[in-house]
Amino acid sequence: MGQPSDIEIARAAAKKPIQEIGAKLDIPAEQLLPYGHDKAKVSAGFIAAQAGKPDGKLILVTAINPTPAGEGKTTTTVGLGDGLNRIGKRAVICIREASLGPNFGMKGGAAGGGHAQVVPMEDMNLHFTGDFHAITSAHNLLAAMIDNHIYWGNDLDIDIRRVTWRRVLDMNDRALRQVVTSLGGVANGFPRETGFDITVASEVMAILCLASDLSDLKRRLGDMIVAYRRDKSPVTCRDIGADGAMTVLLKDAMQPNLVQTLENNPAFVHGGPFANIAHGCNSVVATRTALKLADYVVTEAGFGADLGAEKFFDIKCRKAGLKPSCAVIVATCRALKMNGGVAKADLGAENVDAVRAGCANLARHISNVKGFGVPVVVAINHFVTDTDAEIQALKDGVAELGVEAVLCKHWANGSAGIEDLAKRVAELADSGEADFKPLYPDEMPLLDKIETVAKKIYGAGEVVADQSVRNQLKEWEAAGHGSLPVCMAKTQYSFTTDPNVRGAPSGHSIPVREVRLSAGAGFVVAICGEIMTMPGLPSVPAANSITLNANGHIEGLF
Amino acid sequence: MGQPSDIEIARAAAKKPIQEIGAKLDIPAEQLLPYGHDKAKVSAGFIAAQAGKPDGKLILVTAINPTPAGEGKTTTTVGLGDGLNRIGKRAVICIREASLGPNFGMKGGAAGGGHAQVVPMEDMNLHFTGDFHAITSAHNLLAAMIDNHIYWGNDLDIDIRRVTWRRVLDMNDRALRQVVTSLGGVANGFPRETGFDITVASEVMAILCLASDLSDLKRRLGDMIVAYRRDKSPVTCRDIGADGAMTVLLKDAMQPNLVQTLENNPAFVHGGPFANIAHGCNSVVATRTALKLADYVVTEAGFGADLGAEKFFDIKCRKAGLKPSCAVIVATCRALKMNGGVAKADLGAENVDAVRAGCANLARHISNVKGFGVPVVVAINHFVTDTDAEIQALKDGVAELGVEAVLCKHWANGSAGIEDLAKRVAELADSGEADFKPLYPDEMPLLDKIETVAKKIYGAGEVVADQSVRNQLKEWEAAGHGSLPVCMAKTQYSFTTDPNVRGAPSGHSIPVREVRLSAGAGFVVAICGEIMTMPGLPSVPAANSITLNANGHIEGLF
Repeated sequence: MGQPSDIEIARAAAKKPIQEIGAKLDIPAEQLLPYGHDKAKVSAGFIAAQAGKPDGKLILVTAINPTPAGEGKTTTTVGLGDGLNRIGKRAVICIREASLGPNFGMKGGAAGGGHAQVVPMEDMNLHFTGDFHAITSAHNLLAAMIDNHIYWGNDLDIDIRRVTWRRVLDMNDRALRQVVTSLGGVANGFPRETGFDITVASEVMAILCLASDLSDLKRRLGDMIVAYRRDKSPVTCRDIGADGAMTVLLKDAMQPNLVQTLENNPAFVHGGPFANIAHGCNSVVATRTALKLADYVVTEAGFGADLGAEKFFDIKCRKAGLKPSCAVIVATCRALKMNGGVAKADLGAENVDAVRAGCANLARHISNVKGFGVPVVVAINHFVTDTDAEIQALKDGVAELGVEAVLCKHWANGSAGIEDLAKRVAELADSGEADFKPLYPDEMPLLDKIETVAKKIYGAGEVVADQSVRNQLKEWEAAGHGSLPVCMAKTQYSFTTDPNVRGAPSGHSIPVREVRLSAGAGFVVAICGEIMTMPGLPSVPAANSITLNANGHIEGLF
Repeated sequence: MGQPSDIEIARAAAKKPIQEIGAKLDIPAEQLLPYGHDKAKVSAGFIAAQAGKPDGKLILVTAINPTPAGEGKTTTTVGLGDGLNRIGKRAVICIREASLGPNFGMKGGAAGGGHAQVVPMEDMNLHFTGDFHAITSAHNLLAAMIDNHIYWGNDLDIDIRRVTWRRVLDMNDRALRQVVTSLGGVANGFPRETGFDITVASEVMAILCLASDLSDLKRRLGDMIVAYRRDKSPVTCRDIGADGAMTVLLKDAMQPNLVQTLENNPAFVHGGPFANIAHGCNSVVATRTALKLADYVVTEAGFGADLGAEKFFDIKCRKAGLKPSCAVIVATCRALKMNGGVAKADLGAENVDAVRAGCANLARHISNVKGFGVPVVVAINHFVTDTDAEIQALKDGVAELGVEAVLCKHWANGSAGIEDLAKRVAELADSGEADFKPLYPDEMPLLDKIETVAKKIYGAGEVVADQSVRNQLKEWEAAGHGSLPVCMAKTQYSFTTDPNVRGAPSGHSIPVREVRLSAGAGFVVAICGEIMTMPGLPSVPAANSITLNANGHIEGLF
């Protein structure tokens, strides 16, 4: 007898009214803006009123370099939140919102899995509370205003070949990657090449997730660079006059969303920036609010720890003044075997040696996270195919590093399966052991920052960058952007830029193909490999089988 | 001392919790899906459970050919709803949702005006409950799936020059009117010409507003023609396999939105199809639900009665089996003067002769509406510049036709200013005088339907159409679409196709430039003049001055 599917478990959830969930955090019902009976936004007024209160402990959930199926980072985040509540702690989780578009490509979605999920799962994978739609509207308003400015005389003297602001849709639509607009004659403007990205790749998304409040949001939106003149001087969103209207479009989206776990514990689900060209974390507003309302806040960062944890620490925590108390690195026997050299097709078979070999990958991540001054515990996310010998090998491998690895069965058993981890996490977080510091100081030159991440986190021997990239970084430093952190865009599957190189390689080269300035979000993106900002649909998209059945249930989405 | 502005009045409204508004219609709180504290969707389950109940009386509010500022049709609809409640009737109004994009072009928005408004006005002019975003997503998913189908081998043998399905955004963006997509090489598909319309112009919008429930919605979506093969045979949305996923994206949007008037009376605000290439009415689901819950339902149709009322009767009522009991034609002294030959700049000055002359326009509309078997009352929407002599001239002109014209001061005084109209409307609706019949039978040939509307409603002498148009109509008849009603796309300012020809011209020609088949919505569009389906922004867009002020209030949107 197997376990029911994620969607079956989610549909059977005994959800409580969202006002009851809010009450667990002492949020009065009138300060919750409900969206249906099981979702709500927390009002900006209530959030502002929490300012003077002390903060709870912040716990990051990150992971080793994953298999393509993922290692259950969100599932473990949800499970740990439930586990902390189970052992009597006041805990809340903070995770990201799902992007709509990809759900119509591959079956997917889900916020967690098994008995560690956030609900309502279906809404969260569709329109949810409309945040991403608001971001799409705000982003595209700016695009329309740029072309409109050019159309009506171009007083700002924009070079139409150098408009960098593209448009976005929350849709997998490869046909929109590269387009020519304003065809059809005088009434439609000046033809030019441009394209569309998926909404989660928008700088507006990154800004929404980093802004501290609406006035900070507006300032950051205004700072975005949207085009250049022939003399290469930048034109900003503020020059176009779009920052105010964009802020109006985003005012509701800035309020974090409250939902619940299957065990009726509170969960903030807010924001969802790309984890490659952006920082891949849920919003600062949600995290800060959670810290005011709970004693323990469990959050996650996109991809493996080399990308996700590093950006969480060096971008989000640095800029938002957050001090994480503990980090959980999620590992699975499957992923360790893959990092130990086993092919994907053979991951189901026992291979203790491969687990041992794969521990080198885990060891690098442990050492990296410890380097930020944050104590670490490893969560072994249990799969039914794991053998006792493999689990023991993993535990032994980690023990050598002075770190504990705790077996977690939250997928099968909910909070009852993750009590041990919850206890260890609370212990570590309360120990006062943490002494967080970012990897590099603000004043380090941009290229040095890239090299520092590459060498210290990835174990690389060198960074390779063309003179044009180096010159560009120098220009931005001269223009006053030198104190920004760097945001690395690299494959999540390897410490190198080759997704097939597993384990813990060292001495490799990290080529920086291109750099981009996100002046509003506040980071410089270093692109190290192919980065796709507008996905396509597969030959048989999930959309072909998604429908409402006779019971009004959604089929094919999960 | 003048009256406060619309937005000042709206912000001062003493709104009641939406559950209290629902209770007025006996909707239990658990059947309302709240969006914040002042908006809610009525659950599909509750709606289905009302099926056996008797219907209230349906009252249409329409208008004469307007001035560019409009004649206050929505304001009168809202006022009349409040007026009926004031005289002790159980009444509800049904109006359309506002499109987001145009608000960033010209100052605008507003649902009604003065003391006859629906609130929350700001939300209604921004994202509201996300219905239009859902339509945008569903529409663009289909577009992505068409290009994806072609990309992966084009099994349906679509002629890429004959893909008729465009994309949409709820944004005024002229640069997107005509574009070339799929540039950039093999990975991005096959380059082709296409473009974007504004979301309200989507056939999906028209379908959402005409579908009776989710299964009818899915069937209609499936019927939409999206492309043709080289042999000119049609390819439908169902062939692409997108109808199920689109239905899933639209399932929440299909549930009507409940809000309130300034006087705390219930208002359904749902759907918003274009009034030119579509039928311009709020949703059938909202209207039908309202009829089950109230004794009087006041609704409106877009543009003047020649377009709006005709489509309301011949498309919406015909297809939904609705039987209107009474119609209100809104007139203003200003619009009568304009129809009597006065230039826009001179409308503020008294001109009794022009009012008399303009009555010819009103008389044509009265006669047209009566022709559908629906009794008529004229509402004089009072402007402060109106003189007693002008109002008397209007009343006298209408009396000659055996119709009453009632002076209404709801803009200034709310329901207290519109009691007389409310009484007259209730009297007419209760009289049993109505004997609704559409203008033409289903089985009439398509071109004859166009000619019937042109001659009987517009007073035209002839319809002029190229052989290609005539052939196209014949082909659609042969393909089984001959029983559809026609949807006329024409200027709203005149009975002719020239917006400058006012009054009640007759014997003119109506040129049909193009016909389009909306096979899912269920009508054939006859395009008689320039129709813009993607607006642009003006040289100084409203967006430039829209912002949140220090109090968190929106400035510049209204």
